[in-house]
Amino acid sequence: MVLTELEFYKEQIEAGLDRFLPSASTAPALIHEAMRYSACGGGKRLRGLLTLLACQVVDGSWQAALPAACALEMVHAYSLIHDDLPCMDDDELRRGKPTNHRVYGEGIALLAGDALLTQAVETMICFVPTGLEKNYWQALQELIKACNTQGMIGGQVLDLSAEGKQLTLAELQAIHRWKTGALIRAALRIGGIIGGGDEEALRALSAYGEAFGLAFQITDDLLDLEAETAVLGKTTGSDLRKQKATYPALLGVEEARRHAGLEIEKARCALEAFGEKARLLRELAEYVLQRSY
Amino acid sequence: MVLTELEFYKEQIEAGLDRFLPSASTAPALIHEAMRYSACGGGKRLRGLLTLLACQVVDGSWQAALPAACALEMVHAYSLIHDDLPCMDDDELRRGKPTNHRVYGEGIALLAGDALLTQAVETMICFVPTGLEKNYWQALQELIKACNTQGMIGGQVLDLSAEGKQLTLAELQAIHRWKTGALIRAALRIGGIIGGGDEEALRALSAYGEAFGLAFQITDDLLDLEAETAVLGKTTGSDLRKQKATYPALLGVEEARRHAGLEIEKARCALEAFGEKARLLRELAEYVLQRSY
Repeated sequence: MVLTELEFYKEQIEAGLDRFLPSASTAPALIHEAMRYSACGGGKRLRGLLTLLACQVVDGSWQAALPAACALEMVHAYSLIHDDLPCMDDDELRRGKPTNHRVYGEGIALLAGDALLTQAVETMICFVPTGLEKNYWQALQELIKACNTQGMIGGQVLDLSAEGKQLTLAELQAIHRWKTGALIRAALRIGGIIGGGDEEALRALSAYGEAFGLAFQITDDLLDLEAETAVLGKTTGSDLRKQKATYPALLGVEEARRHAGLEIEKARCALEAFGEKARLLRELAEYVLQRSY
Repeated sequence: MVLTELEFYKEQIEAGLDRFLPSASTAPALIHEAMRYSACGGGKRLRGLLTLLACQVVDGSWQAALPAACALEMVHAYSLIHDDLPCMDDDELRRGKPTNHRVYGEGIALLAGDALLTQAVETMICFVPTGLEKNYWQALQELIKACNTQGMIGGQVLDLSAEGKQLTLAELQAIHRWKTGALIRAALRIGGIIGGGDEEALRALSAYGEAFGLAFQITDDLLDLEAETAVLGKTTGSDLRKQKATYPALLGVEEARRHAGLEIEKARCALEAFGEKARLLRELAEYVLQRSY
């Protein structure tokens, strides 16, 4: 990400995480250290950025949405820690570093994931900017539903059951709509809700989020297939090694790229009513597409 | 528990759990089945009962507190599933049945725990009785703090770090104050908050909860040491096998019993201001003490 404005918001999210997470010197220090190891100082912060930008696009301030943006990132970090555990994907590298359980052991990693989910909810109810209590209550409903068995957890269950099986494109899309799509869509709706957006704005943000999430997953699959371990920061080709269904495996690389392009086009269309205010959301969509080249 | 009134409330909690948890026929069915395996049809329901009774003691209705009571039980079930995993306590039996991961595998058990925590929060925000939105918002703050690293998770971390070490009585009490005490105290405060109790009532309920929680842990240790596997429903003597510090190990059986009795006495005293209205809370305290004989 080379865009200066997006870098600015990314830094606000990093600073917010540092503020909303218990300090590593608070007892019991080990768990706070493990939480921060996975939640701080890394990652693209796409979900948090989407929340801040969605709040702005409906004329809210990014500051109003910051606790929610950080909660989204905590939820994302929790899902990665649990996903990397030996009983799930059994991954050794994440964002170029050893995974949480490789550093802290499986027990602490399990609890660090639990604690990040818990801290995400605590952030949504204990760091609410004055006057936004109702918005945050509604936003918490969006967040928790996106995390639940009809969202992220449901996707992880389907993913777990699908290992080693031959999937159709429809089945693969269903997994991703839940596993990564639900949280990305929620990130946008939450920003819209906190910013006071109306039903029409929320519908547009949802449509953008759904297309964005799908494009993101396709380009993630493409990266897993193509990139060097050093660039991606996780064990390259691990999908292939685990015989996981991916878009390029099902469609071929070129067709997968074309799909991603079509979804990004859909995402851009969904933003039309917002006009120039949606410039950064457009840039973010463009960035997702470019990273697969 | 032979007391008919308490049995009635226990049945309401079972029915509530059935209502507030996704049905086992909803897709993805496997995760809902795994959640229900651990959350439904078993257990003493102490935490849920404490919530209902605390609500009544401040003149609220048990119906008002039912979603919260069920949320408490979901949180408790989540903590047991994760606690029983091989990377934690590695237990094979719970409430007389194989533990969740022995039935569904570690991956699904991990996710079932995650989903029960998530569903607990969803229950607290999506099944709020009309007019009690503010009470539930405040109650959710109590719940989430009790679950976090300064509560239940913190206790699990200390417990994990303490394995194989020689603990002092003070250290053992610190572990239990967090690991089981925080949630029991929260169960009472949450009931009090939903029932509209004032600060003084909440203080009394907290004092009752702290003493009750400690007594409960001591008698649990005594049971682990003494009871037959068949009665207790978990592998007896597993604390001993894992060289875990316990009250009877540190104090001797008789002295541990005396401690439990003193705590129950404290719990009873805390209820004085409530008079006859606190009869069932007194009976519950008596029950905890009796179960160690």
